[in-house]
Amino acid sequence: MSIQIPRGTQDILPGQSEIWQYIESKARDLSRRYQYSEIRTPLFEHTELFLRGVGDTTDIVQKEMYTFQDRGGRDLTLRPEGTAPVVRSYVENKMFGLPNQPVKLFYFAQMFRYERPQAGRYRQFVQFGVEALGSSDPAIDAEVISLVMNLYKELGLRKIKLVINSLGDKESRTAHRDALMSHFSPRISEFCSDCQNRLEKNPMRILDCKKDREHELMKTAPSILEYLNNESSAYFEKVKQYLSDLEIEFVVDPTLVRGLDYYNHTAFEIMSDAEGFGAITTLCGGGRYNGLVEELGGPETPGIGFGLSIERLISALAAENVTLPVETQLDCYFVALGDAAKDYTVKLAQALRLQGYSADRDYQDRKVKAQFKAADRLNAKFVAVLGDDELKEKKISVKNMATGEQTAISLDSFVDEFRRLQA
Amino acid sequence: MSIQIPRGTQDILPGQSEIWQYIESKARDLSRRYQYSEIRTPLFEHTELFLRGVGDTTDIVQKEMYTFQDRGGRDLTLRPEGTAPVVRSYVENKMFGLPNQPVKLFYFAQMFRYERPQAGRYRQFVQFGVEALGSSDPAIDAEVISLVMNLYKELGLRKIKLVINSLGDKESRTAHRDALMSHFSPRISEFCSDCQNRLEKNPMRILDCKKDREHELMKTAPSILEYLNNESSAYFEKVKQYLSDLEIEFVVDPTLVRGLDYYNHTAFEIMSDAEGFGAITTLCGGGRYNGLVEELGGPETPGIGFGLSIERLISALAAENVTLPVETQLDCYFVALGDAAKDYTVKLAQALRLQGYSADRDYQDRKVKAQFKAADRLNAKFVAVLGDDELKEKKISVKNMATGEQTAISLDSFVDEFRRLQA
Repeated sequence: MSIQIPRGTQDILPGQSEIWQYIESKARDLSRRYQYSEIRTPLFEHTELFLRGVGDTTDIVQKEMYTFQDRGGRDLTLRPEGTAPVVRSYVENKMFGLPNQPVKLFYFAQMFRYERPQAGRYRQFVQFGVEALGSSDPAIDAEVISLVMNLYKELGLRKIKLVINSLGDKESRTAHRDALMSHFSPRISEFCSDCQNRLEKNPMRILDCKKDREHELMKTAPSILEYLNNESSAYFEKVKQYLSDLEIEFVVDPTLVRGLDYYNHTAFEIMSDAEGFGAITTLCGGGRYNGLVEELGGPETPGIGFGLSIERLISALAAENVTLPVETQLDCYFVALGDAAKDYTVKLAQALRLQGYSADRDYQDRKVKAQFKAADRLNAKFVAVLGDDELKEKKISVKNMATGEQTAISLDSFVDEFRRLQA
Repeated sequence: MSIQIPRGTQDILPGQSEIWQYIESKARDLSRRYQYSEIRTPLFEHTELFLRGVGDTTDIVQKEMYTFQDRGGRDLTLRPEGTAPVVRSYVENKMFGLPNQPVKLFYFAQMFRYERPQAGRYRQFVQFGVEALGSSDPAIDAEVISLVMNLYKELGLRKIKLVINSLGDKESRTAHRDALMSHFSPRISEFCSDCQNRLEKNPMRILDCKKDREHELMKTAPSILEYLNNESSAYFEKVKQYLSDLEIEFVVDPTLVRGLDYYNHTAFEIMSDAEGFGAITTLCGGGRYNGLVEELGGPETPGIGFGLSIERLISALAAENVTLPVETQLDCYFVALGDAAKDYTVKLAQALRLQGYSADRDYQDRKVKAQFKAADRLNAKFVAVLGDDELKEKKISVKNMATGEQTAISLDSFVDEFRRLQA
C-alpha cells in the first residue's frame, strides 16, 4: 500500500525544479548586486520566539503554527515566517556590533502554516526575503522595495502593483489607536470575536479583518495618515520621493496594515493584476519593524524587510504566460552495440563529464534503436555510436543532431576531438 | 531577554553561507553533467513512511525521529533521511511510467535526527543525495559512486577513502542471516539489549553495533562475501570492474553493513583520512535498495543512491586546509557629501545594479571619511565620490582602488563610462 504526501504540501519534481532553480539564481544574483548576503536559520525555533516576535494577536500565532515538543521536552515551532528567526540570529550573533552597517541579509526558507489548502496556498511554502537591520535612512526602505520590484520585473512580470502605507512611529500609532478605539468601541458587538479581542490589544488589526470587511464602520474608520506626527510624515514623504526617483510606481493605501504586529512606518504589499490569477493576489509583503530587535532582547535597532512566496510568484508567472528561459539539453548520449562497447562507454561518459559536458548512456540493456530514441527524448546535441567492431579499430562515430553531420573520432583523443565539434 | 537557537542546530551566517552556495553550485553542476535532476519533497512526511521505509530496527526510527501531530491529528515526522521521501514521491507520481529510465534524481535537504550534539553532528543537518531508480545495471552503481567521488575531488578533498561491500540479493542475505544467527545465538546474552533484539529481526545489524564492537565474536563472524550466490557475486565483480575502469580506488570491507534496513547488493561509505578530522570520519553513505519501491507500494523497481552531509564535508575541507574560491567583491561604493548628492547616489547605485554590477552606498549618515572606510571594508573595486558641487557640474569622480587611478565621469552617461572603466 502506498503512502501519500501530507495534505497541503507538494513535491517539486524535475521539469518544475528547474524553474525554482532559475528563480533562486535570479534572486541570489539580485541580492549580490544589492549587497545582501545569505543567512540560513533552523527550520524550527523555540515557540516563544514567535509569540514575542510575531505577536499573539495574529492569526499565525493563534491558529496556524506547527508546534510540538522534542524528545527533550523543548517547546518548538516550525518557522511560520522569516523575520523573527533572522532577528533572533542577529541578536544571538551580536551582528549589531559588526563594522558594516546596516546588516543586509537575504534568505530562502520553507515556512509552515496550518491553513486551509487552496490554489496557491500550501501548508509548507518557500519565501525569499530580505532584511536590512541597523539603518533608519528612508533610502533603505526604497532600496528594499526596489530589490523586489526589480526581481519581478527581471523575471518578466508586468502586471504588478505596489501599494504602500505608513503606520507611523509609536506616537502616531498611539494617537491613531485611540481614534480607532473611539470609532469602533460603541458598535464592537457587531464585529467578529477576533475583532472584539483586537479592540483592546491592537485595534489597527481590525482593519485587516476578512470577515468584517464590509461593515460600514470599516469605510469610515480614521486613517493612520491623518495621525502621523511631523517626523513620521517627513519619513514617509522621503520614501515616496526615492521611489519616484527610482521610477517605481506606487499607490498609497491608508488601510494597508499587514498581518503582523511589529510593523511601523513603511508598510507595503505587491499584488498581481493579472487576469485569472485567482483570489490571493498578494505576492509580497513587507515593512519597517523598528522595535522588534529590542523586543527580542537586542539593542534599539531599526529594521526593514519583505517576504515573498515563490509558489505565488510561479502562479503569477503562469497567469501572465511568462516562460522562463530554462534549458535542459544533453551534450552527448552514447549508443553502444555489444558488451565490450557498452562497458567502454562508461569510461567515455565519465571523460566528458569530467570536462564539464553533460553525458549519458543506456542503463536498461536496450536495443540500439531504443537507445537512439532515448537520445532524442533527452534532447541530445550529439549522439556517439560505438560497436564492438569500432572499438577494435579505436574509433567512434559522433553525430551532430542539429545538422545531421557525422564524424569519426579516434577513441584515444575522444575528449579533445569532441570539444572541437562544439565550435 | 533574548531567545536562543534550539540546541543542536546552527545558523549559517554571511561569510559561511557563501561556502554553502559554492558547494551547492558544484554539486548542481556535477548533477547536470551526470544528468540527475532536482527533486524537492516536503520537510515532513506521514510517520508511517519512515517506519516502513527506513526500518523499525534502526536507531533512526527507534530513538531519533522528530515526530508530532499536526492540528488535524496527522502523525507526522520531520524527514530523518532522504531516500524514503524520494521513493514515496516516485511511487505517488508514477515515475516508473516515465519514458526516460532510470529516473535519476538529486536533492539538497535538511534532515532531522534527535542525537546527542557533538562536533560535526547536528540535530538539523543538510544532505546532498542522489537516487537512480529503475536500473539494475552495475554500471549505474559505479556512476553513482563516481559522482560523489568526483564531487569531493573537484572541491579539493584528497584524503578520502572509498569502502565498498556487497550485501547480496535476498537468497544470499538469507543464507548469511542463518549463519549469523548460528554464530551469535549461543552467546547472545553477552551482547547489548539492542543486539539481542537484532538477533531475530536483523542479525546483520549486530555487525554495525558500536557498543559491542570489541566482542571476540565480532571478529570471527561469518562474512557476507562467503555467502553471495553466483548472481550476487557476478554483480559485485562487475561493479568493481567499472570502478577500476574509472580509476576510482576502493577497499572492500565485508563488515560494512550500513545503518538502514533496506540495503542489498552494493553498499559503500566514504571516509576522511585527514588528521584531526575527529571521531566521525564517515562523509557519505549509500547503496542499492532493490525492494524498497515495492515496500512503499510501487512496482518491483531497483534503486541505488547515496546521501552526504554538507556539514561534514565542510569539516573535512577544513581538516585538509582547503580554501574554496569564494569571492565577495563590491563593484562600486558611492561616497557622497551633501544632501542632494546623497539622494542622487540612490539613483546611481540603482542604475549600476540594473546593469549587473554590485553597488552600495552609505545608509548611516556617516561622514566622508567613514564612508571611505566602509568602501574599504566592503572590498570595493571602485569608489565613486559625489559632492553637491560636482552634482551641479554633472560630474562624478571614480577611483580605481587597485591602481589608484581617478577619472571624472559625466553623470549623464555614468553607467556607460563606468562600464568602460572595467576593461
